[in-house]
Parts: sequence; C-alpha cells; structure tokens
Amino acid sequence: MSDVNKVVLAYSGGLDTSVIVRWLQDTYQCEVVTFTADLGQGEEVEPARAKAQALGVKEIYIEDLREEFVRDYVFPMFRANAIYEGEYLLGTSIARPLIAKRLIEIANATGADAISHGATGKGNDQVRFELGAYALKPGVKVIAPWREWDLTSRETLMKYCEERNIPVDFSNKKKKSPYSMDANLLHISYEGDLLENPWNEAEEDMWRWSVSPEAAPDQPTYLELTYEQGDIVAINGERMSPATVLETLNKIGGANGVGRLDIVENRFVGMKSRGCYETPGGTIMMKAHRGIESLTLDREAAHLKDELMPRYAKLIYNGFWWSEERKMLQQMIDYSQRHVNGDVRVKLYKGSVSVVGRRSADSLFDESIATFEDDAGSYNQKDAEGFIKLNALRMRIAASKGRQF
Amino acid sequence: MSDVNKVVLAYSGGLDTSVIVRWLQDTYQCEVVTFTADLGQGEEVEPARAKAQALGVKEIYIEDLREEFVRDYVFPMFRANAIYEGEYLLGTSIARPLIAKRLIEIANATGADAISHGATGKGNDQVRFELGAYALKPGVKVIAPWREWDLTSRETLMKYCEERNIPVDFSNKKKKSPYSMDANLLHISYEGDLLENPWNEAEEDMWRWSVSPEAAPDQPTYLELTYEQGDIVAINGERMSPATVLETLNKIGGANGVGRLDIVENRFVGMKSRGCYETPGGTIMMKAHRGIESLTLDREAAHLKDELMPRYAKLIYNGFWWSEERKMLQQMIDYSQRHVNGDVRVKLYKGSVSVVGRRSADSLFDESIATFEDDAGSYNQKDAEGFIKLNALRMRIAASKGRQF
Amino acid sequence: MSDVNKVVLAYSGGLDTSVIVRWLQDTYQCEVVTFTADLGQGEEVEPARAKAQALGVKEIYIEDLREEFVRDYVFPMFRANAIYEGEYLLGTSIARPLIAKRLIEIANATGADAISHGATGKGNDQVRFELGAYALKPGVKVIAPWREWDLTSRETLMKYCEERNIPVDFSNKKKKSPYSMDANLLHISYEGDLLENPWNEAEEDMWRWSVSPEAAPDQPTYLELTYEQGDIVAINGERMSPATVLETLNKIGGANGVGRLDIVENRFVGMKSRGCYETPGGTIMMKAHRGIESLTLDREAAHLKDELMPRYAKLIYNGFWWSEERKMLQQMIDYSQRHVNGDVRVKLYKGSVSVVGRRSADSLFDESIATFEDDAGSYNQKDAEGFIKLNALRMRIAASKGRQF
Amino acid sequence: MSDVNKVVLAYSGGLDTSVIVRWLQDTYQCEVVTFTADLGQGEEVEPARAKAQALGVKEIYIEDLREEFVRDYVFPMFRANAIYEGEYLLGTSIARPLIAKRLIEIANATGADAISHGATGKGNDQVRFELGAYALKPGVKVIAPWREWDLTSRETLMKYCEERNIPVDFSNKKKKSPYSMDANLLHISYEGDLLENPWNEAEEDMWRWSVSPEAAPDQPTYLELTYEQGDIVAINGERMSPATVLETLNKIGGANGVGRLDIVENRFVGMKSRGCYETPGGTIMMKAHRGIESLTLDREAAHLKDELMPRYAKLIYNGFWWSEERKMLQQMIDYSQRHVNGDVRVKLYKGSVSVVGRRSADSLFDESIATFEDDAGSYNQKDAEGFIKLNALRMRIAASKGRQF
Repeated sequence: MSDVNKVVLAYSGGLDTSVIVRWLQDTYQCEVVTFTADLGQGEEVEPARAKAQALGVKEIYIEDLREEFVRDYVFPMFRANAIYEGEYLLGTSIARPLIAKRLIEIANATGADAISHGATGKGNDQVRFELGAYALKPGVKVIAPWREWDLTSRETLMKYCEERNIPVDFSNKKKKSPYSMDANLLHISYEGDLLENPWNEAEEDMWRWSVSPEAAPDQPTYLELTYEQGDIVAINGERMSPATVLETLNKIGGANGVGRLDIVENRFVGMKSRGCYETPGGTIMMKAHRGIESLTLDREAAHLKDELMPRYAKLIYNGFWWSEERKMLQQMIDYSQRHVNGDVRVKLYKGSVSVVGRRSADSLFDESIATFEDDAGSYNQKDAEGFIKLNALRMRIAASKGRQF
Repeated sequence: MSDVNKVVLAYSGGLDTSVIVRWLQDTYQCEVVTFTADLGQGEEVEPARAKAQALGVKEIYIEDLREEFVRDYVFPMFRANAIYEGEYLLGTSIARPLIAKRLIEIANATGADAISHGATGKGNDQVRFELGAYALKPGVKVIAPWREWDLTSRETLMKYCEERNIPVDFSNKKKKSPYSMDANLLHISYEGDLLENPWNEAEEDMWRWSVSPEAAPDQPTYLELTYEQGDIVAINGERMSPATVLETLNKIGGANGVGRLDIVENRFVGMKSRGCYETPGGTIMMKAHRGIESLTLDREAAHLKDELMPRYAKLIYNGFWWSEERKMLQQMIDYSQRHVNGDVRVKLYKGSVSVVGRRSADSLFDESIATFEDDAGSYNQKDAEGFIKLNALRMRIAASKGRQF
Repeated sequence: MSDVNKVVLAYSGGLDTSVIVRWLQDTYQCEVVTFTADLGQGEEVEPARAKAQALGVKEIYIEDLREEFVRDYVFPMFRANAIYEGEYLLGTSIARPLIAKRLIEIANATGADAISHGATGKGNDQVRFELGAYALKPGVKVIAPWREWDLTSRETLMKYCEERNIPVDFSNKKKKSPYSMDANLLHISYEGDLLENPWNEAEEDMWRWSVSPEAAPDQPTYLELTYEQGDIVAINGERMSPATVLETLNKIGGANGVGRLDIVENRFVGMKSRGCYETPGGTIMMKAHRGIESLTLDREAAHLKDELMPRYAKLIYNGFWWSEERKMLQQMIDYSQRHVNGDVRVKLYKGSVSVVGRRSADSLFDESIATFEDDAGSYNQKDAEGFIKLNALRMRIAASKGRQF
Repeated sequence: MSDVNKVVLAYSGGLDTSVIVRWLQDTYQCEVVTFTADLGQGEEVEPARAKAQALGVKEIYIEDLREEFVRDYVFPMFRANAIYEGEYLLGTSIARPLIAKRLIEIANATGADAISHGATGKGNDQVRFELGAYALKPGVKVIAPWREWDLTSRETLMKYCEERNIPVDFSNKKKKSPYSMDANLLHISYEGDLLENPWNEAEEDMWRWSVSPEAAPDQPTYLELTYEQGDIVAINGERMSPATVLETLNKIGGANGVGRLDIVENRFVGMKSRGCYETPGGTIMMKAHRGIESLTLDREAAHLKDELMPRYAKLIYNGFWWSEERKMLQQMIDYSQRHVNGDVRVKLYKGSVSVVGRRSADSLFDESIATFEDDAGSYNQKDAEGFIKLNALRMRIAASKGRQF
C-alpha cells in the first residue's frame, strides 16, 4: 500500500474530503496535492486553501473553471439534446470529465503518480472520475477511499476526526441538509434520506435553486435567445460568455420555478436510484435548442441525431466522455450545427418552458411551400401520388401474397 | 376516369368532404359510401347521416370507434413512449391507421373498389391513409380529390357548391376558426393562418381544449394512475376503460393548462410546417408511463426502447403503422411491458406535469442496495474497482499508445 | 472461504477441470457435483464419469444436449444473422448460456449453493458463465478457480497434481496441441501460441475440422436447404433434426474447406485477442439464411434486423443471453421469421460458399414487376417522378438556401 | 414541353443514350450537351465524341474521372465497411453521385437548365442521379426519357432509329449480352434475362471480370496491403494512386476468381430484384480493411461503426450521397480512421479472400495482456470478478424478484 508517492485529490474543502487528505497521508505515507475547482456550485472555493494548509498540504490548486466547463462540456452536450432515460439532463455527469482532466494535468505538473476522489463505491461518479483518469494517463494509480477504508458510518468517521484533530464543523452549512447533494453551474442534485422511498414526494424545503411553481410570479417571463452554431451567444440581444449565459438562465429560470425533476434512474453500476434535480438554465436550453434546430436542421440530420442521442447521453452518464466513441459522435454532432443559427423566443411560467417563436436567416422553413394558401406552383401536389405509390409498393406486394394484418 | 364502381369516403360531414361526395359522383359516375367515425373529436357524428342522405348516399357507416382507437392504437403507441422529433405526441398520426383499416373493411363489405379521403397533397395524412389502404387491400384504387381537382381556391369551391346546390353553411361552426384543425380523443391540432410565420406566438383564443396555464387553478391537482402491463387501467383507484381513461385525463389535464405544444415539424413529404397541439391526457400519460417504467423496467430494456423509439415514432408519423417493421417493433415493445405494473402519482399545476411518486409490486428498485446507509453487505463496494478497471482497459491501452485526448 | 456447501462444476473430464475438482474439495471443504455435456465437441463424454468417480464425486451429471443446443440457441441466433465484429459467428459464445442454465438447474436439483467453471480471468467465457448463473439464480455463489488460485503456471499445476495423485496424462490427446481450443457442434476455436502474434499466419496443421481449400475436391458440391420459419428443416429434401442438420453441414462444409476464419477480436474484458475458428456448417447457414430472407422478408424488416444485428451479436458475445434486452430482440426476430420459408441452393467449392438459387411459396419477388420486359402495367414508371421529387424536396430547399456541398 | 433551353446528358455513347440525344432534340427543341466519363468501365470513352458530333452535339465533355472516383467516393465508402443487405458492395450506387455532380457542374458551366440520363423508371439509378442533381442545383429540370417516351419496346426503339438515321449497330459489342450491365472501376453488374428467375443459377459465360473459381490457379496468391488512415496506399510495398490500387486489385482478384456475388436485393422504389456482381478489388478491400481495423480501432469505435453501417450503406444505395445525414456520418467515420494504419496480408485462392496477418505501429493489440502465458501483472484477473458482479447486478435484482427466464 505504500507504493504511492504523491496523490492529487479532488478536494471540496468539506469534511469528507478533508478526512480523505489525512487518511491518504496516514495510509499511503504520501504527499497530497489538493485540487478545488469552482464549477459554479455556488460555494466559495478560496476557503479550501486554508483548510488544506491546515492539513499540511503544500501544493494547493484552486481554479475557476466555470467558463471552460460551460464552453467545452455543457454546450457541446446540449448540441446533442442529450437526455438520459428520457428525463435527466446529466448535470452531475458532465462535470466529472473536466475534473478528471485537471486531476491528471495537475498530476503531470506536480509529478504525482496517483489521483483520489471522495466518491463512494456505489455511485456513478467514481466511474466517471476513474475512466477519465485512466483514459488520460493510463498508468495512474487511483485511490478511492470509500472503497478501501472502514470509516463507513458517521460514528467511525467522527471518531477518526476526533483522534486526528480534524475540525468536524467546518462545513456545517452543507451538513444541515439530510440529502446527499452535488452542484455545479448546470444543476444541483439531491439523493438519500426520504427520497430513498420512490413513493415519497420530495419536501418543498429540499429544493434550493428554484422557487416552487406555486411561488413563482403570476406573470410569465419572455426571453429571446440567440444561437450561433448551436450555442447560445446572447440573451435578449445582449452577447455574453457561455458561463454567463448559463448563470443568467439559472437565475431567471429558478425565479420562475423552472427545472425541477424527480426521477428513478439506472446507475451504471447496476442499481436503480432515486434522484431529484434542479436544472433551471439547462431546462430552458434544451427546449430552446430543439426550437432553433426545428427551423434550421435538415429532417434526416435531426432524426439521425435523435436516434443516436440516447447512446450519446448514456456514454456521458456512464463516464465515457474521453472515449473514442463519444468523440466520434461529437464530431458528427458538431458538424451538424454549422447552420444552427437564429433566435428562439421562450416563455417561462410557473415551472414550464414553452417555445413560442423561432426565426433564422438559415431557416429551412419555406412558407411558400408549406402554406395552405396558393403556393404559386412551388409544390406539385401530384408528386405525392407517385411518392405514396412507391412507398407502398413493398406493402402492396406483401399484401397481394396474403400478408395483410 | 370512369373505371371506379363504388368508393368509400372518409366523411366528416363538413363542407369539404360533402363537396367530395358530389365531386366523386360527378367525376367517376360511381356510387359513394360514406364512413364517419367518432374518434373523440368532440363533434356529433350522427348529423353526418342526414347530410350524406341529402347527397344521395345510400350506404352510410357511422361508428363509435373510441374504445378501439385508444385500446389498439393509442395505448400500444404510449407503451413505446413515442415522441416525434423530441416534441410531438403523434395525435393526428395515430388515428389514421384505424380509419384506413375501416375504409378497407367497409370496401370489402360493400364491394367497393376504391377509397377516398379529404386530405391535401401537401400533408402527411394522405400518406397515412393511403399506405394503410394499400397495405390492407393491395388492389384498391385511391382517389385523393385535392390532388386531382381544380377546386383549389375558396372561390372555385364555393362556385362549385352553388352550381350543385351543396349547402355551404352546414358546417359553419368549424369555419369560424381561421386554422386548419384536426381532433380526436388524443389531441386537437392547429395549422395555417398566422402560425405560418414561426416567429408569431399563437393567439390565446386559438386553443380549444385547455385553459391557459395562467387561467388554471392556483392549487395543484394530484392523480394516482394505476398501470397494468404498460397501460393505465385505473385513475385514483377507479378502474375504467381505455377511452374513459383518456377522456378523464383530457378533462383534468385541460383544466390545469396541461398539454399545449407549439412546434415546427418535418413532414414526410419533405417540407417543414408549423403546428400547435393540445394533448392534455397524452402529456400526462407520457410522463406517467416513464415514471412506472423507471421502477419496473430493466435498465438495458429501457435503453433499447429509448434508442428505437425515434424510429418507431417516425414510422407512425410517416404512415407505416401497418408495415412489417412497425409490427416487429411492437412485438418487442409489448413484450417489454409484461412487468410494467404499479401506481404513479402525478402533480398537475398550471401547465406542468410532474411525477412525484411511483410504487410497484414489480419494482426493481432495491432500497437495501441503493441506500446511503449501511446496506448490510448486499453490495460490495470493492466490486466497483474491477468493474471500472476492465471498463477502462481498452482506453488505457489506447492511451499507452499515445492516443490521449 | 468455507461457507460453500456444495458446488456444481462444469467438468470436461480434462486435466484442468480435474484439478479443479480436487482444489474445490480441498479449498472449500465442500462436495463437488460434476456436470459434463455433449454439445457436439467431438469427444466422448462418458469417460468423464470414471474420472469424476476417481476424484470422489458422488453426483455426476453427463448429458447429451446437442439437440437442445442447436434448436434453442444456435438456430435462434442464426435467425438474426448474428455476426460479431463483421466476422465471428459466435461459436463459443452461444454454448455458454446453455451450460450456465444446466449448472443452475443441477444446483437447484442437488441443493448446491455454488457453481464453478474452468474459464480464466482474462477471457469472455467467465463472463458468459457467470452472467447466466446470476441471472437464473441470483443468490448463487460463483467460484472461478483461475481467478483465485496460485496454480498459474504449468509447473505449479503439475506439482499440485503430483502431490494429490491426480493423473496428469489422462487427457493427453488434447494436450498435443499447443493451442487453447474450444469446440461444440457449431465450431472449434484456437487461441494462443504462435497466434499471439497477429502477423503470423496460422499453421495448416492447426486446423482440425476442415481440409484446406487447396486439399478440397476439385468439383463443387451443391446442396439444397429447406427453411421453415427461418430454420433449416431439410437438406437435399431429407428432413432432419436441428442437430443433424448442423452435423451434416459441418461434415460437408469441412470436406470442402469451408468455414475457416482468422481474426483479431475485442473481448468484453477490454483487450484484443487473436483467434482462429472453424465453423463449416455455420458458415453455410449464414449465407443460406440471408438467401432465403432476401426472397421472403420485407425490405424494411430486413433492414431493421440488419441495424440491430450488431447489438444482438454483441449481447451474445458479452454473455447477456439471459438478459431482458436479448429476449426482447429475440421476440422481434422470431416474429419476423414467420414467412421465411422455402429452398436455397448453395454451392460449396474449395473454401467458398455461394448462394446460386432461392425459391419460396412466400416469395415477395415479383417477376412481373421487376422485369426488364413489358410489365403489363403492374408498375407505373411515372410514379417514380413524384417519388424522387418529394424525396428530394428537403435537399432542394436546403440547396436553395445556399447549402449545396 | 418546350421550356428547356439546354440539357446536359449522361452519355455513354451506346445506342440507348444516342437515341436519347435525338429524342431530346426532337421533343424539347433544345440543345444537348453530352457528358461521357471514364469511371473505369473498361470501354474507351473517346469514341463517344464522334458519335455525339454525328448527332449534332456541339458541347461534348469527355473526362477521365477514375482517380476522383476512387479517391473521393470509393475509398470513403470503404472506410465505413459499407455493405447493403449483408452482401452488396454498392458498386453501381457509388458511381452515381459523381456523375450527378459533374452533370450539374457542366450545366452550370454551359448555362444549361436541365440534365438527363438513360436510367429507367423502375430502378435505383434514376433516384441516385436525380437526388444528386436536385441537392446540388435545386432549380434544375430533370428529363428522364424512359419515364416519358413511348419507345418502351425494342421494336419501337428500332423504328425510331430507322426513321431518324441513328446507326443501330454502333454499340453492337455490348448488345451481344442478354443482360443489362453496368460497370465502373469498382464492379460490373448483371440483371435481367434468365436471372429474372431467382432459382436459376447464373451461367458461367455471363461473368466478364473474373475467371471461375474452378479455373483459377491452383496456388494461392498472397498480397500485402498498406493502409494509411483507412485507405490503401501501397500493394506489396509499392505506393500507388487510389485508382491504381483498385485496378491492381481487380486484376489480381479477378484472376483468382474473387468477387462474384449473386443476390436478390430490395430496390428503393419498392421491388425486389435479382442481380449478379463482380467486385474483385472491392471484395479484397472489404476484408482487408476489417483486418487493419481489427488491430487499430478501439472496440466501441468499431461497434459504433458497425451499428451505423447498414444505415450508411442504405443512404448510398438509395441515392442520398449528397444528403446532410450521409455527410454527418462521413465526418464520424473519417475521424475514426486517423489511426487506421498498417499492413494486412491477404490470401486469395479460387474465389476466397482470407486475412492471414495484420500488423501496425498503431496496433491496440497488447500481446503482454492477451497472452496465455505469464503477463507479468499487466492484467489483474481478480478485476474480472467485480466487473462481472456489477454487470450482473441488474439481472440478479430482477431474478430475485422472480423474473428468471
């Protein structure tokens, strides 16, 4: 167990990962490098510095990755309209590859031979962290304390802290919640406690990022979103950076009760789990992106994307962001977005998002053809007869051989 | 043009199809059989009898097909979670195969050699009617007046009516709307007029089946839906027939502003068109079915269904209900539903539907495994290490050959 | 390690599994039940009885499963035209689910709480055995000695035998080959030794079931195969059982040099491996089945099968025969075969198989339509214009917006 | 019918298209531009000049497109391992998009407003030509004489020639065959005559590009093919251009009886047809490309390609080369080929092609892991246990709920 020299830890500054710092030092007699990222989780990251220092950490990385996160991970994923199992917008999943990448880059920069994280052995996050790490640095050693140690109950953990003088109250703000939570600029998630019975409705005071639909304003809010090559570049005509787009939509969406989700999902490790999510901005982006694509994307291009989407979403959910197959799909998806430009008008109202208008200089909507009025010959209705006849031919032949019904 | 002996017409009793009766008689010198079905469109069908008689029709079929429609078409489609282009619940599409089937059965019963319908040459419905007809009676002749005649403007049509004493005002109720509409128990649709500009927001007074979210009650409505083998069999504990289920959900959904949709869609004939839809009950069923499946369906079964769903939905949209490939997919889907039993609790509120609880005697959710608390050994976290290592192996090998990033 | 009471072992009668008998007895202090199946591997199974008895085994199962194997596993798989990675006919993969099933059934019959097998920790077979076992008896304990013991070199193994008086020469016939081999009625496989370098050509004397193409007869052999619902029921007009069909085709195919394959494949556990296979009968069946389907299957049914085939093949390769998703696909595939009846004429010649004729009472080939001669109006060439125009419409609209190339 | 000013005709120099020149001049009173391409069909194209001149054509385009054909159409298609309906290598299909493109480019260069071709109204080629033309020049007029004229029998055609002094014997060489044939550098095809009965075996003297397997040399031929990014760049160490690669492989393959195929296929227009094909070089390339991919492509990349291949092949077969969805898939496929480098050794013998060796500096085959011998710890067999356990988990849970079998 002692063949680790230096380990880079994904460090939140909270109790659990603080315990991990000490446990790594004790167990592996190795140096620990901490890495704390601001991905928009809504908590200060700078305080992690003092905490790490107090634990004797010498190399401390604290980074604001919000723009990189949205630009290189969230936006590409939304180009695919990715939804896992028909419902989940992959808020947790999409943050892991970036963390894995930075862990490895920092390992390379500091000469570390291992990485570590605070994810448990039952969840998806361990898989996402570790697949990323292995894909980017095949010889890296991965230490997952929750799979190794015996601090598996709250009591043993507390005892461990006491014995080692780890201050147990330094993240008490988060501990007020009985739920296991994760947050980044795309979403916040809740698991555990009374959610473990999927028949229980989530309590209203669990939700943190959105008001309840009942408490949202009585007047709808309208937004105009401007797309370039599949990404939002402006809101109500004001250009802004990717992270600012998402922050803005989160704020407005949350104020309108938009983006709550309560599901039972299938984890990659084989079990079902119940989770609740708030994804205000993402929920708006999903609807709006389909809106702009509906106008600018070729039919079969859209259908090809739709048929491959569940597979793409599953790859991200399961942690295969850095895999060849995800990159192949991304190539295809990004290529499809080169004409996805224009404006979408959305209406937010007490929890719902509706697309109420879309326009584009690259529109493929041809009013002169689609019209119920005189189309001046741009479409010959008689063409439909031959179209139908030949589409029917194989079925007619089959029926003539007695294969009806 | 005179080689038609007898034709069965899908007859609504409205002006357009009444003109078609006369036009068929005139043009083909043939006998016309009318077929009028109650599919839940919300208009009396019995008045069609007198209108047909007035036009000299001798064989008049008027049928209540609501139960057959929901039981054999709507419900099987919802087992697939079918959505076209990410948004559209296929309300118009799913009614056409049943009409096609009855047209052909009536043709067989009355010795007719042709069928006819009132769909235009630009839309999807002509395709759906005719593919169905050809698949079920390969030698049938299809007459699509809108592709043949020259009554293509309102004036020429009116002139034709005048010359032939067809009463033009007998369906004036429907004509008050500037929109082209279609309705059945699953939905009502709107096309045309100001919708032809996809940037225009639909007017509030266009919608007919639902109140606006703004006008919906300030208190949410909760429903408990009971599933057996993928179909709803009871609402709030009261067993009811398929059509009654849908009628009930339409009523309650509509009262809560649920089920409005505004999209640009891709027609099979090659153009984009803008449509608005109200599908109150269907919108509830879609969410609830995913809810019960999330608890009772195996993960990979669910993912297989998700990956094939866009193709299945496209088949129905394009009119291939009676095709071999749709039937093959249906076999697979129906088989997957044998354990999809249990209850789903949904919350309706001002336009939104949320699943807030689900339970089932066939649940695959194993609380003892998923728990964040002590699982008493039902899951060995150490298994995850090997799981991840072997999932990563191919990526590690690739990376070790220099293929990172 | 001692909490095993009784274990059912997949016992070949060879050295390795004989060592396993003893090792299980020693290590787990448990009773061992042996199960030896004739799956058509071409070796007597009855001698396994005396060997097992000599090792102190009291419950010995020896069974001829050839008919069940071909009827319930091989034939259903060939209905799907299943090929893994474009080349491999899944000969080893398809035998494992049946063995897993019998292991579990015997465990249930004998009150055993564990099963064991002789597959290594690097291969696919361990996965196939164990996934099957777990799927059929979720609480079963699985013992995989090759993953547990330290007898990992030939020397330690021999020493173990010597110390325990296990006769090391009793399967010396098989040991003459330097290759790791596996055989059943569908195929024989070779791995290891010089094949481990994928640039090396396999030696001629490695192959056991087929003559080399060079040594095959100078005259071709013709066969007429009769299909009912996708399965061969007669050869040259003679009806025979499933296993007899496959045996017969193996003999004739092998005599004509048919069915050799040399590939590099991707294992489920993450590595590439090189394997050689002889599948004489299977190679003929694959070509012939496509032949009869080409005449009797609807186009889109065939294409749907083709698009899902790689996924179906992968499920079998990876060991998911008993999974819900494989069963769902099988439902669809079996349904598609209800009209796949008729005769296929194949020509075998020095390693190649060609379909040279096919006929069926359920043929969908309509000579009167397909002919280059006068078709007497059964096809209206003018229909093609509308068909093409509407298929082109979306591309014309795109091009008119400047999106050529 | 006279609103055509100038038409570009795909002109072979044969009788049929010569008649078309005159018919276009007569019927449309328009100028005809001829376009004759050398795609490797094995006939001189230069003689078409005199024939066109004799028919009064002033603008005559005769081009050698062999390199462009192989480099930009054949090779990209083979990167996808494209096979239609499990058998057909798409030899005819892949030539059409290039012809369509040149027709449109010449139309643009000459100011023509129409294009024309000699394909019939029953086949796929009309679709392929016209979809291409419309996709590249949306306003182009397409004239398909075989769908318009009444010269549908040999007699009426001859009479037409006689009346207009078109020399009927100038292509008598080709007319010696009773089959409808098409050839380019990738293949030659045969349809019609006795092939119209799919039970008839093709006659030996029909085949033109290959000797029969029986007549091929008694000694096998070995070739070493060198790949760069998925394309063959050298044969037996000699670098050569794409067209030379294919010509060389055709010659060697044909001499070894390689590449004959006899199938019933499903046309896009809805009927089944029987065709025979000789694709010597393509057959070798297909096997060899899979061989080099087996060594250099990631498993899931390969599987993704395999699952999408039938759809890609269908797009090409149906004439959608210039569609957005084909281009999207091509992006993905081409990207996947960036490491597909190395050598493949193939053995040709009396009709069969076998891969007998493959090697690559980009190999992902890791002998140290795959070996049956001691792997020095590069693979930990114990990892397999956790891998299997978690892969089995969902099935175990289902089984524990009574869902076995």
